[in-house]
Amino acid sequence: MTAKKEKKPATISKATIDRLPLYFRTLRLAQDEGIDIISSEELGRRLGITAEQIRKDLASFGQFGKKGVGYYVNELKRNVGQILGLDHHWNIAIVGIGHLGVALANYQNFVTLGFNLVALFDQDPNVIGSRVNHVKVEDIRDLKRIVKERNIQIGIIAVPAAFAQGVADQLVAAGIKGIWNFAPIKMQVPASMHIVNEDLSIGLSSLSYHITRM
Amino acid sequence: MTAKKEKKPATISKATIDRLPLYFRTLRLAQDEGIDIISSEELGRRLGITAEQIRKDLASFGQFGKKGVGYYVNELKRNVGQILGLDHHWNIAIVGIGHLGVALANYQNFVTLGFNLVALFDQDPNVIGSRVNHVKVEDIRDLKRIVKERNIQIGIIAVPAAFAQGVADQLVAAGIKGIWNFAPIKMQVPASMHIVNEDLSIGLSSLSYHITRM
Repeated sequence: MTAKKEKKPATISKATIDRLPLYFRTLRLAQDEGIDIISSEELGRRLGITAEQIRKDLASFGQFGKKGVGYYVNELKRNVGQILGLDHHWNIAIVGIGHLGVALANYQNFVTLGFNLVALFDQDPNVIGSRVNHVKVEDIRDLKRIVKERNIQIGIIAVPAAFAQGVADQLVAAGIKGIWNFAPIKMQVPASMHIVNEDLSIGLSSLSYHITRM
Repeated sequence: MTAKKEKKPATISKATIDRLPLYFRTLRLAQDEGIDIISSEELGRRLGITAEQIRKDLASFGQFGKKGVGYYVNELKRNVGQILGLDHHWNIAIVGIGHLGVALANYQNFVTLGFNLVALFDQDPNVIGSRVNHVKVEDIRDLKRIVKERNIQIGIIAVPAAFAQGVADQLVAAGIKGIWNFAPIKMQVPASMHIVNEDLSIGLSSLSYHITRM
């Protein structure tokens, strides 16, 4: 397969992009189960979308399937991972080492995905100096220097809402590329900054919708 | 507006349903900002989808907009909330009071959305009896009795992956309606049970995709 066939980013729609992490997760689980080849029907069943949509989505990246056989799980997962940029092994930092910050620092899936947790920051002198998952908590006042020294590209905001914008401003000033925000507020960041807001109420609202109709 | 006009669930597609919690969140933020009327263009800008899609989605629930004016924020939010079943004020319980469980118990947005946190469970004698956000942590062995006594409809699983299936089985046996699972495993639950898997690696993968292309 040529590189040209593998990637055609210009033809990938936003809806398809939003499904990429779901494909990656599903393929990873299939790989863990020892599955070598998976049909679009089975992928669709696991993802809750139609086999037709799967075939359409995956065709926009290249030819990973074999007609009448299915997709090679390892190859497809590696390619979806590349498109997602997971082969970059981004360096990440967590700001705010309360309960949520500690839970995130201990989240094993980040390692599985190829992210490197290289720094933890807090402002509380009682927390600074402690270790979570072998990483030392450092003073947030040293954030800018440490972000540059350790080439940190992604900052995770796990501080209370009242402090979140201030932390975002510091991350932007330090030259971070992307922010993953857990604080339930709307951040003001430059248009060039990528920000993903993790709103936990979305999962619960979705569950509410479904059980309302039981 | 008649009830007939307000709800036409049969015509709502899965993709639209998945966007409902996002509409609700965006409308709630707009309400907090004191906005009375919002255009489909502005809603689209905030959500990152087209104004046309917004109009199509919202038309499937009823006529909330006024041509050339926009949508009444309060009215639309109330109606989307009703469709999501948030007016049911579901009783929820969290199982696993480690760092993630404590972070979830303290998450103020659940209260804002109308969910009642009525029980916390753990198996660790050192944790049982303590309080988080005014709710006492109880022995997981009493789960079934307490779920029935307090009419708990939603169970949140925040235990390590190795214990998650066991907890899911207990929640199912206790007669819970829906499960919100944070453990990174694929659960085996009866087809009648609604389960939402919260996979935190999805947000981070999505961010990776975007910064790869900067």
